[in-house]
Amino acid sequence: MRIIKQVQQMQKLAKQTRTKGLKIGLIPTMGFLHEGHLSLIRLARKEADFIVVSIFVNPTQFGPGEDYQAYPRDLQRDCRLIGQNGGDVVFVPSSEEIYPEGYCTFVELEGITRKLCGAFRPTHFRGVATVVTKLFYIVKPHFAVFGQKDAQQAIVIKRLVKDLNFGIKIIVAPTVRESDGLAMSSRNLYLSEQEREDASVLYKSLQGAKSMVEAGERSASRIIVTMEKMISEKPTAQIDYIAAVDDQQLEPLEQLSGEVLIAVAVRFGRARLIDNIILSV
Amino acid sequence: MRIIKQVQQMQKLAKQTRTKGLKIGLIPTMGFLHEGHLSLIRLARKEADFIVVSIFVNPTQFGPGEDYQAYPRDLQRDCRLIGQNGGDVVFVPSSEEIYPEGYCTFVELEGITRKLCGAFRPTHFRGVATVVTKLFYIVKPHFAVFGQKDAQQAIVIKRLVKDLNFGIKIIVAPTVRESDGLAMSSRNLYLSEQEREDASVLYKSLQGAKSMVEAGERSASRIIVTMEKMISEKPTAQIDYIAAVDDQQLEPLEQLSGEVLIAVAVRFGRARLIDNIILSV
Repeated sequence: MRIIKQVQQMQKLAKQTRTKGLKIGLIPTMGFLHEGHLSLIRLARKEADFIVVSIFVNPTQFGPGEDYQAYPRDLQRDCRLIGQNGGDVVFVPSSEEIYPEGYCTFVELEGITRKLCGAFRPTHFRGVATVVTKLFYIVKPHFAVFGQKDAQQAIVIKRLVKDLNFGIKIIVAPTVRESDGLAMSSRNLYLSEQEREDASVLYKSLQGAKSMVEAGERSASRIIVTMEKMISEKPTAQIDYIAAVDDQQLEPLEQLSGEVLIAVAVRFGRARLIDNIILSV
Repeated sequence: MRIIKQVQQMQKLAKQTRTKGLKIGLIPTMGFLHEGHLSLIRLARKEADFIVVSIFVNPTQFGPGEDYQAYPRDLQRDCRLIGQNGGDVVFVPSSEEIYPEGYCTFVELEGITRKLCGAFRPTHFRGVATVVTKLFYIVKPHFAVFGQKDAQQAIVIKRLVKDLNFGIKIIVAPTVRESDGLAMSSRNLYLSEQEREDASVLYKSLQGAKSMVEAGERSASRIIVTMEKMISEKPTAQIDYIAAVDDQQLEPLEQLSGEVLIAVAVRFGRARLIDNIILSV
């Protein structure tokens, strides 16, 4: 397994790999890998001849006061795990390598990036779309894998790929969870013991919503109110949003029908956690 | 020579062409070709095995009240000229093909797109950067050729290519002029007889600036005032701007030194014409 830090070197290797007729799979990450990331690598392994895992804590997707500096990093452990799970290259550029002096180009999606998390993190998806566009040109993948936990990110990236004609397949892989249902996230590290215990309510509230829908409930507001009640009972939980939206435009629904995304963002101490389910109603 | 209207078909042909090891050159145009465009095709012919000329009057680079609807079109003549000058493919997508329903992704460059023409046409370069990014993914060129007449556009695109790691060479070809020095432009068609006569002052004012610099003048304001005086003498001329800036960041200069871009934008009736020279001071 190779570790590459330079854009030019990565670009050259990607070109050579394409010329050989090999199929390249990309898994973009911010590092500090957990079982969720590793499941993406193993999934990619089934389809690709050549797996690139990028590790880049992308400054442009963090807002002022967010956890860019504090975001956990452990490159040595990450590289070991990537090797063990079938990665061929770890691409770890520096911030200056991705955004050199004079850098001024950004990719913006209107509408869907202002909703859900975008309402709380107004420049977040601009940062995501920009770095993903760059990674696609640098790594030249045939497909890229993202996790369903970041549901809005997956929707934004699918739209980006379609709009800019990237011709890259986007695979969205299921959320991997701890035994009590908490979605795996590098940010779970921030949780105190009490917060960790409380945080399992997110998945329970989503399962509650699913049960209500299965029992025939179609009112978004009744489902949201029930979830809000469950989550608010936890002393350390502070809700950013609970939403039931269509899974394309992320428009709030009154009555659930079609493919429905139920998504939550809740702060527990300094950890802002997100989770979601998609229901076919 | 082939005419292609569908993005998918163009993308497939580009992929096949790349797989054969052929070098692809792209000349993006808005059609209604003149000798300036044709010189770009002939220049590309020297470097490329496969020449794609795109014709697309791009709605997102026109502002409200600008000449999107009126912009001249003559596809049949364009195709004949492209064939005669060595083009292999004319890519002529419809507006719906490039911006299908639900389209929401835009590429923005901060700073340099707000200066010169960007100050008068605030969404123009966003439209240019977006469509060029799309064309690069659709046509997959090894290099693309742009005209020096659109000096700011060339600078924006070079920056875009560098920032997003496109790995595509940008060639900027010299401005082709009428016998009296007027830069060729599809918009010259809009000029009345009087306006056409007056419009030759643009090149004369730039040549005047060049002579002043050659004679030792370094004061930007003295050069600009002289140019302003020359242009204002023409009864149909309405100046948008006359500027002396550095050729990277487009920052206004007080004293000329280094690579200096002297650029003008002047309206004659409904034609807004631009021209420029670069001087090594």
